[in-house]
Amino acid sequence: MDIKEQLNEVFEALHAKRALIHHITNYVTVNDCANVVLAIGASPIMADEISEVEEMVGICDALVLNIGTANERIIASMLKAGKTANAKGIPVVLDPVGVGATSFRRESIAQLMDTISFSVIRGNMAEIKTIAGLEAKSSGVDSLEEESDGAKIALNLAQKLNCVIAITGKTDIVSDGKVCYALNNGDVALTKLTGTGCMSTSLIGSLIGASKDALSSAIAGILTMAIAGEMADKSKGIGTFHTSLIDAISQMDAKTIVDKCNISLVK
Amino acid sequence: MDIKEQLNEVFEALHAKRALIHHITNYVTVNDCANVVLAIGASPIMADEISEVEEMVGICDALVLNIGTANERIIASMLKAGKTANAKGIPVVLDPVGVGATSFRRESIAQLMDTISFSVIRGNMAEIKTIAGLEAKSSGVDSLEEESDGAKIALNLAQKLNCVIAITGKTDIVSDGKVCYALNNGDVALTKLTGTGCMSTSLIGSLIGASKDALSSAIAGILTMAIAGEMADKSKGIGTFHTSLIDAISQMDAKTIVDKCNISLVK
Amino acid sequence: MDIKEQLNEVFEALHAKRALIHHITNYVTVNDCANVVLAIGASPIMADEISEVEEMVGICDALVLNIGTANERIIASMLKAGKTANAKGIPVVLDPVGVGATSFRRESIAQLMDTISFSVIRGNMAEIKTIAGLEAKSSGVDSLEEESDGAKIALNLAQKLNCVIAITGKTDIVSDGKVCYALNNGDVALTKLTGTGCMSTSLIGSLIGASKDALSSAIAGILTMAIAGEMADKSKGIGTFHTSLIDAISQMDAKTIVDKCNISLVK
Repeated sequence: MDIKEQLNEVFEALHAKRALIHHITNYVTVNDCANVVLAIGASPIMADEISEVEEMVGICDALVLNIGTANERIIASMLKAGKTANAKGIPVVLDPVGVGATSFRRESIAQLMDTISFSVIRGNMAEIKTIAGLEAKSSGVDSLEEESDGAKIALNLAQKLNCVIAITGKTDIVSDGKVCYALNNGDVALTKLTGTGCMSTSLIGSLIGASKDALSSAIAGILTMAIAGEMADKSKGIGTFHTSLIDAISQMDAKTIVDKCNISLVK
Repeated sequence: MDIKEQLNEVFEALHAKRALIHHITNYVTVNDCANVVLAIGASPIMADEISEVEEMVGICDALVLNIGTANERIIASMLKAGKTANAKGIPVVLDPVGVGATSFRRESIAQLMDTISFSVIRGNMAEIKTIAGLEAKSSGVDSLEEESDGAKIALNLAQKLNCVIAITGKTDIVSDGKVCYALNNGDVALTKLTGTGCMSTSLIGSLIGASKDALSSAIAGILTMAIAGEMADKSKGIGTFHTSLIDAISQMDAKTIVDKCNISLVK
Repeated sequence: MDIKEQLNEVFEALHAKRALIHHITNYVTVNDCANVVLAIGASPIMADEISEVEEMVGICDALVLNIGTANERIIASMLKAGKTANAKGIPVVLDPVGVGATSFRRESIAQLMDTISFSVIRGNMAEIKTIAGLEAKSSGVDSLEEESDGAKIALNLAQKLNCVIAITGKTDIVSDGKVCYALNNGDVALTKLTGTGCMSTSLIGSLIGASKDALSSAIAGILTMAIAGEMADKSKGIGTFHTSLIDAISQMDAKTIVDKCNISLVK
C-alpha cells in the first residue's frame, strides 16, 4: 500500500472513532493543543495528578507526553501514565521539548525512555540528536542544526528504539527504522508562532489514537500542520496567522493532504 | 417577577458594580475564562497558592472552582478558599469537569461538596448525574448521556444540595429546586471549541458576583454563551469561531439576551 | 543621545541578535507572552522546575519573573534563577502582579527584592506604590490609584532600588532615578484584555535581552504595546482586538514607534 493510501486510511480511522487523547503537557501551548485535537476530530483530556493518571489513560486511546514546562511532579505522573499505557497497548507519543537545554530535561527524558515504549517521538533536529546521543546545537527550545543528515539519524534511532522518529524542520523526516520519508511542506511562519511543534505532536496523538498506525499517523499529523501553515493567512501578522491556522486544521481532510503533500521516500 | 425581568436585573447589577471574581481553575482554558470575565464586564483574578487563597477570596465578589486539571495541592486550596467564601457570604460556583472520569475527581468533588456550600453547580449531564449518584456515561470530559430526564435530575439535586443546578447540553436545564427552566439556545460549534463549558461557569461567576442571585445568574451566564455561540462566525473554522465568540460575549447586553432567548418553564 | 535615537538603537540590537528570554510566569497569560516575544523578534522559553532554572537562565539573555499565579514552589525557583542571572550579568525584569492583594504576594516580592537586583520593575500604580511602601488602593490585579504623583514615586523608587521603574496606566511613567519620562500612548481597550501588562513586561524582557539597556528597553517595550493597542482593530470586540493586537506587535518597527510615540521628559 503506498503512503497516500495509508494517509487516506488514517483519516478514515479518525472519522470512524472519536478518539480520546490524554495529554500530560506544558501550560504554554495547552489551549492550542486542546483546540487542534478538537479541530481534527478527536477529544482532548489534560490531567497530570499522579493519583488519577493511570485511570485516566486507561479510558483513552492515546497518551501524549510533552515536557515543555515539566517539573518533578509532572515527570512522575508521566512515568506512571506511560507504564499503564504500555501495559494496556495504548500508543504513547513523546515531545521532548528543549531536551538539550538542561540536565533536568536530559535526565527526565532518559528516565521516560528507560521506562516507557513510545510509538512516536517528534522533535526538532537538536532534540532528536540529543536523544540519539549526538552533539546538538540549540537555542532554548529551537534547533540550530543543519538537516542534511536527518534521514540517517532518524533511521538509526527508529531502529534502536523500535519507534517512529519524526524530525520536524524545513524538511520533515519521518522513519520507522525500515523506511524513511522526507516531507517538503510547511511555511516559515510556523516558526514564528509558539506551539506549532506541540500542536503537531497532539495531531499525531489524535491520529494514532484512532488508527493505531504509528508511521502514517506521524506523517499525517505533520502534514496536517504543514499544509495548514501553507493555507493560513500570513498577510496580517502572527495573531491572524494563529487564528487562520486553527481554521485550516479544522477544515483539513485527507483529500487536501493527499493533493498538496510533497512527500518522497528517502529510503 | 418573570424570568426576563430577572435577566434584566442581573445585567443591571453587573453594570453597577465591577465584580472581582476569584478563580481556582484549570490551565487549559484559563486565558479564555479571564477574557470572558473581562468581556462581560467583571474582573478576573486567578490564584491558587494555599497561603493566599483566604485573603484573596476575601476581597472578591465570587469564587469559581473548576477541577479541570486539579491536583492534590489545588484541591486543598479550593477547600480553604471555599470555606472562607462561605463564612463571608461570598457565592461559590463549581464546575466539576470530568468528575466521572477518575476516582480522584469523584473523591475530590465529594470532599468539596462536604465542605463547601455552593450557589451554583454547572456541568454536562454526565457530570451532574455523577454528582447525583446516578450512573453516567461519559467520554473523558464529554457526556454521552441522553437529556430526557434532565429536569427531574436537576430539580432533585438542587433540592438535596440547596443550590442551583445547571446542566448544559443541547437543551440546557437550570433549577433551584423549586422551579426548572429549559433553555434552547446555542450552537453545535460550541462543542468543537475547548473551554466553552468553563467559560460559561466563569460567566455565571461574574454575574453572581454582581447580582448575588444564583438562579438568574446561572440562566444569564448560560444564555450569554449560547447566544454568543449563535451569533459568532462559523463560516471559516474553529479559530475564527473562537475569536468571534469572544467578540460576541464582549458585545452582549441584556436586550439581546431577552430578545433572542428561547426559554421555557418546565416546572 | 535623545530618547528617539535610543529607541532606534534598542530595535537595532533586537534585530542583530535573537535574544532568548527565560520566563517564570503565570499560566493565565503565558501563551500570549510567548507569542509577543516571538512577534517582536526574540525567543521565549518558559521553565520553572527548581532543578533546571539555573542552567536555563544561564543560556538566556534575560529573565522575566511574573508572580501572577505564583506559589511557594515557583517563588523558590524565581529566587534561584534570579540569583544566577545576577551572578552572570543577565538582566532580570519583574512584574509584581497584584502584589498588594495578599500577604503571600507582599512577602514573596519582598523576598525577591531582597535577593535579586532587578533591571526593570513594571507594574500599575497600585503595585508600584505597594513596592514603594506607600498605601495603595487596588481591586484584585487592577489599580484604583490616581496617577498624579507617578513621576515622584517612580524617581524615588528607581533611585532607592537602583533599577528602572515603569508605571503603566493612562499615562505611563518610566524612570531610571535620574530622568523620568511620561508616555501618552495606548488605548482603553488594552484594559479589557487580560495579560496586556504581562505582555508589556515580556516585551521589555525581549528588548533588554538584546540591548542590555534598561531605560530604553522599558520605554520601547511599553510603547510597542501602547502603539499596537492604538493600531489594533477595536470595532468588533475583545476577540478581534486580541488577534489584531498580536498582529500589530508582529509588524511593529522602530520607525512606527518613533513616529507615533507621544513621549515627554518630566524630569
